[in-house]
Amino acid sequence: MQKHISLDAIMAMDKQERVHFINSLGGFKSVSLVGTVAKDGKTNLAIFSSLIHIGANPPLIALIFRPSPPERNTLSNILETGFYTLNHINEAIYQQAHQTSARYEKEISEFDETGLTPEYKNDFKAPFVKESLVQIGMAFREKIDITINTTIMVIGEIAEVYFPEKCLSKDGFIDLEKANTITCSGLDSYHKTIQLDRLSYAKPNKELTSIL
Amino acid sequence: MQKHISLDAIMAMDKQERVHFINSLGGFKSVSLVGTVAKDGKTNLAIFSSLIHIGANPPLIALIFRPSPPERNTLSNILETGFYTLNHINEAIYQQAHQTSARYEKEISEFDETGLTPEYKNDFKAPFVKESLVQIGMAFREKIDITINTTIMVIGEIAEVYFPEKCLSKDGFIDLEKANTITCSGLDSYHKTIQLDRLSYAKPNKELTSIL
Repeated sequence: MQKHISLDAIMAMDKQERVHFINSLGGFKSVSLVGTVAKDGKTNLAIFSSLIHIGANPPLIALIFRPSPPERNTLSNILETGFYTLNHINEAIYQQAHQTSARYEKEISEFDETGLTPEYKNDFKAPFVKESLVQIGMAFREKIDITINTTIMVIGEIAEVYFPEKCLSKDGFIDLEKANTITCSGLDSYHKTIQLDRLSYAKPNKELTSIL
Repeated sequence: MQKHISLDAIMAMDKQERVHFINSLGGFKSVSLVGTVAKDGKTNLAIFSSLIHIGANPPLIALIFRPSPPERNTLSNILETGFYTLNHINEAIYQQAHQTSARYEKEISEFDETGLTPEYKNDFKAPFVKESLVQIGMAFREKIDITINTTIMVIGEIAEVYFPEKCLSKDGFIDLEKANTITCSGLDSYHKTIQLDRLSYAKPNKELTSIL
């Protein structure tokens, strides 16, 4: 049976029900751990499912920040230091990754609490997550205030990328399944994937073919 | 073996290689068909993997538009009429969905070319995709110019939602696997999912539990 829900019914939901419902509706999401460090050396690690590809030239990825407390360390660290890391989540660490969403005191590092390991390398200023197989070093570029609901979009440029060599295809595509990267839906549901196919570049009046 | 690539090497890639590489790096993505109609009644359908949850109250989802030609019909129709639809992609229609990315002439409707069926219902002004099991009617709210690379973010408010009743959990979560919704990576890779778990709300010093 098909169910139909209108805006009025959405607004009449209790708050947590609406949050689960709307967060599910967007579909499966990119999910990563964002690693930062404060000026005083204190590390922070937070799970984000609001990553979005902005462009390839220059290579840009954006994150959306809510105006509420849990993510404030991440945002203030990014603005203070100018650098942060994005670390893909795999099946071995998704529970630890989810635990970073707990509201820890500011003095506490989520690395310590979850047992994930901060990894500094090649003079990059922010900590990577050692257990993550796809690690991206980001340089802050722009902050955009989304006035309609007081969220904030932070755009960063990709500075460094680490990933398993076996994942890279000749055409530049990275096979994320070979890196055990997972996806999420809603606020708390984690999923591994099974590739259906890669499809050829679409042209009018031309049959698509598999490019696997 | 771990591979390390820096910005210089990314910028030295050939254009298509860089596009594949950077589009893969963000992880698995939400992917939907965006349905619109022009003032003259001509329909348009385009695949987007740049959806992002902006907030639940009010319920907002954003799309990123490139400054290039293929998506111009979608954007101009949204701005002209104020309405559009987001339609989840399932295993039965992902090839047709991918085909909508071909650069058809402006007079041609991707509905006609791909065999997907426009569905008008409950007086909503934009066409849904009949073959899609999760259909969302959107009202345009805000356009934000991302000056750093001349892309455009369009924010819409969820007005109507249609989905299979069996997908809805008590707490508001929608089980997208029951709706056969798929995800994508890179420019052309499609994936179905296998749920690992749903995890309880994380709190400091409290063990996570499965809430399936």
